[in-house]
Amino acid sequence: MKDNNCIFCKLAAGDIPSNTLYEDGDFRVIMDIAPAVKGHAIVLPKQHMNDLLTAEDDTAKKALLVVSKTANAIKDALGCDGINVLQNNGKAAGQTVFHLHFHILPRYKNDGFAIPWQPLSYGEGEAEALAEKIRTAF
Amino acid sequence: MKDNNCIFCKLAAGDIPSNTLYEDGDFRVIMDIAPAVKGHAIVLPKQHMNDLLTAEDDTAKKALLVVSKTANAIKDALGCDGINVLQNNGKAAGQTVFHLHFHILPRYKNDGFAIPWQPLSYGEGEAEALAEKIRTAF
Repeated sequence: MKDNNCIFCKLAAGDIPSNTLYEDGDFRVIMDIAPAVKGHAIVLPKQHMNDLLTAEDDTAKKALLVVSKTANAIKDALGCDGINVLQNNGKAAGQTVFHLHFHILPRYKNDGFAIPWQPLSYGEGEAEALAEKIRTAF
Repeated sequence: MKDNNCIFCKLAAGDIPSNTLYEDGDFRVIMDIAPAVKGHAIVLPKQHMNDLLTAEDDTAKKALLVVSKTANAIKDALGCDGINVLQNNGKAAGQTVFHLHFHILPRYKNDGFAIPWQPLSYGEGEAEALAEKIRTAF
């Protein structure tokens, strides 16, 4: 249930103090101490699971309710113009702590934090070939 | 239920053809036609809701199961090293279509797609003051 070597388990359990924004039986929401944007919060399940790929269904069912609640609280409290929810799986995706977590980022017009989005194009038949591979993996 | 002016409603309903990866009674998962990374998929609820801030609880409970299923299918099919899940709320956060959706991005070591993450520091008492505001907005 809890992994004694995992810092997010300890934060979620309250064994390490944090700036807690919300807590229920399954989750703790805390301020990120190294925010990408001020007001950046993270949603942590109390149960250890590495990432969303291996998340238990019961946690997955509840998590987005807490994420939505957190996004609304941040928007109401800070009056920001938008919210990004970012969830990273694997080192190549920027995950640094291997305990499932969701970043909730308040966003403001011209806040200087941009997620670069350079749309790529697919070659002839390329998207269809990738889609067929993915479809059969469901 | 369905907004006739919403392109994602039409895609989710199948009224506009798409490269569909998965479909159930509540969701459709399609290939993004302007991918940030090749294999980029989007998860769409069939019911119209603008964003996660206004999402209905029943959709929120089911959505992350579909997101997780999609992330696993992409990882298995493409053998990528990681997965980012990104969900944007509001124009300031990069949302361009105002129908709740989740971006599922396959990631590879050195794939050149980076989400810039310059950690900020809080001044004395600043994080606590923001946290107090957010905490009371829950």
